[in-house]
Amino acid sequence: MHIEKLVEQIKKKKSFLCVGLDVDIDKIPTHLKDLEDPIFEFNKAIIEATQSYAVAYKPNIAFYEAYGIQGWKSLEKTIQYVNKHYPEIFTIADAKRGDIGNTSTRYAKAFLESMNFDSITIAPYMGKDSVEPFLAFENKHAILLALTSNEGASDFQFSEKEEKQLFEQVIETSQTWKNAERLMYVVGATKATHFKKIRAIAPHQFLLVPGVGAQGGSLQEVCRFGLTKDIGLLINSSRGIIYASNQKDFAEKAGLKAKELQEEMATYL
Amino acid sequence: MHIEKLVEQIKKKKSFLCVGLDVDIDKIPTHLKDLEDPIFEFNKAIIEATQSYAVAYKPNIAFYEAYGIQGWKSLEKTIQYVNKHYPEIFTIADAKRGDIGNTSTRYAKAFLESMNFDSITIAPYMGKDSVEPFLAFENKHAILLALTSNEGASDFQFSEKEEKQLFEQVIETSQTWKNAERLMYVVGATKATHFKKIRAIAPHQFLLVPGVGAQGGSLQEVCRFGLTKDIGLLINSSRGIIYASNQKDFAEKAGLKAKELQEEMATYL
Repeated sequence: MHIEKLVEQIKKKKSFLCVGLDVDIDKIPTHLKDLEDPIFEFNKAIIEATQSYAVAYKPNIAFYEAYGIQGWKSLEKTIQYVNKHYPEIFTIADAKRGDIGNTSTRYAKAFLESMNFDSITIAPYMGKDSVEPFLAFENKHAILLALTSNEGASDFQFSEKEEKQLFEQVIETSQTWKNAERLMYVVGATKATHFKKIRAIAPHQFLLVPGVGAQGGSLQEVCRFGLTKDIGLLINSSRGIIYASNQKDFAEKAGLKAKELQEEMATYL
Repeated sequence: MHIEKLVEQIKKKKSFLCVGLDVDIDKIPTHLKDLEDPIFEFNKAIIEATQSYAVAYKPNIAFYEAYGIQGWKSLEKTIQYVNKHYPEIFTIADAKRGDIGNTSTRYAKAFLESMNFDSITIAPYMGKDSVEPFLAFENKHAILLALTSNEGASDFQFSEKEEKQLFEQVIETSQTWKNAERLMYVVGATKATHFKKIRAIAPHQFLLVPGVGAQGGSLQEVCRFGLTKDIGLLINSSRGIIYASNQKDFAEKAGLKAKELQEEMATYL
């Protein structure tokens, strides 16, 4: 998807909400468990209930990989469903891949070509030639981990070199790579004060922000420092939406949660 | 697998060779392509031909993921085949995963429990809580990226903080994590001089060394600085072995290449 289409959709829906599809079979309503593919059925219902309020869906690949071949089937059906019924919605494979060039090319093809996701999250540790293969596809995007919202973020991401912390180095350096205009960054919302620093070095890029809600980040704070004239933010919520209820009304409740977030977002636009 | 079993096998075989199973369907002999599962048949033949000279097998997960569900089937059959016929051989899922805690737990279960690999390679960028879930399994190991052998390694891995480069910080810090005795590290062989530095901070840990051969590293140099009294090295070779021939004699030629490397290794033990 071209970035303009994403911006267009954000403006139309007055939303920059991404719904994280981290589906744990132990947490979905019991009445779905007898169906042939409970995870897909769950996703389908969540997508139907939230699609007017969300501009992106982000399956967390680990949750599918954990179920082996059946999990991959559920994932493929989910992405096909979104691409078929809601082609205007941006899709993110939250896979955090990254390896030497020829290997990254394989991952890139799997997610961006065969499965036809619009984007994939990438780990930066191995540098340029591990990331560039994900940038080689027109209208596709690599979302590079910069500053994450977990506790372990403090282990290495703040290491300094010439007064620049590692997450800043990652953002700066990656902008010199081939097709860098297809890059976005993961920036954890629990560190809203860092958005100012990041916008100084990445003034226009889209930032994918996990950690609003359950992980304690403030949407208002993130918007204050992170919004650009083309919005430039995708705010992810997973558990807060998809597990709003584990009863028969799960989809309805998920829709209400998504609507609530969309309405708050509209006030910041 | 307990580390002692690995050491025992290394001493018995006089080899610390790991064979990388990076199987590209375009590179395997044409006579295999009409079989039901060409990738598995290729792996089976390679394993049979090299198992007396190798102590570890390392499927590169990207190569399987690239073929979707069929690829996962080939991967599962391959690991089951090794575990059934050669349970003494150490297995490595070269997956380079890493995510927030609950997500890493999913990846860990998929590879270390469901598929029953002995170990998995992990990216360190997200820190402690992204790695510890992989260390929670008895007799299983997480192999953390420290210094990689690709060009992009220079982008971030040498960033300095208080005179320590990032790859040194990764090794030092990770040793304070829970169950750190189950850690190993990826150290690229093209940087043999760095082995001295690494052995100063990780004197006993096993190092998985890619990049000998095709990528230009010298086995002798690596052994000079990397060997410990319990060996402490696994040297990976992928393309140099598995694509030694693309004719009907591919397995035989792979066996000869593996034997050659094993014989060189024996001289350093």
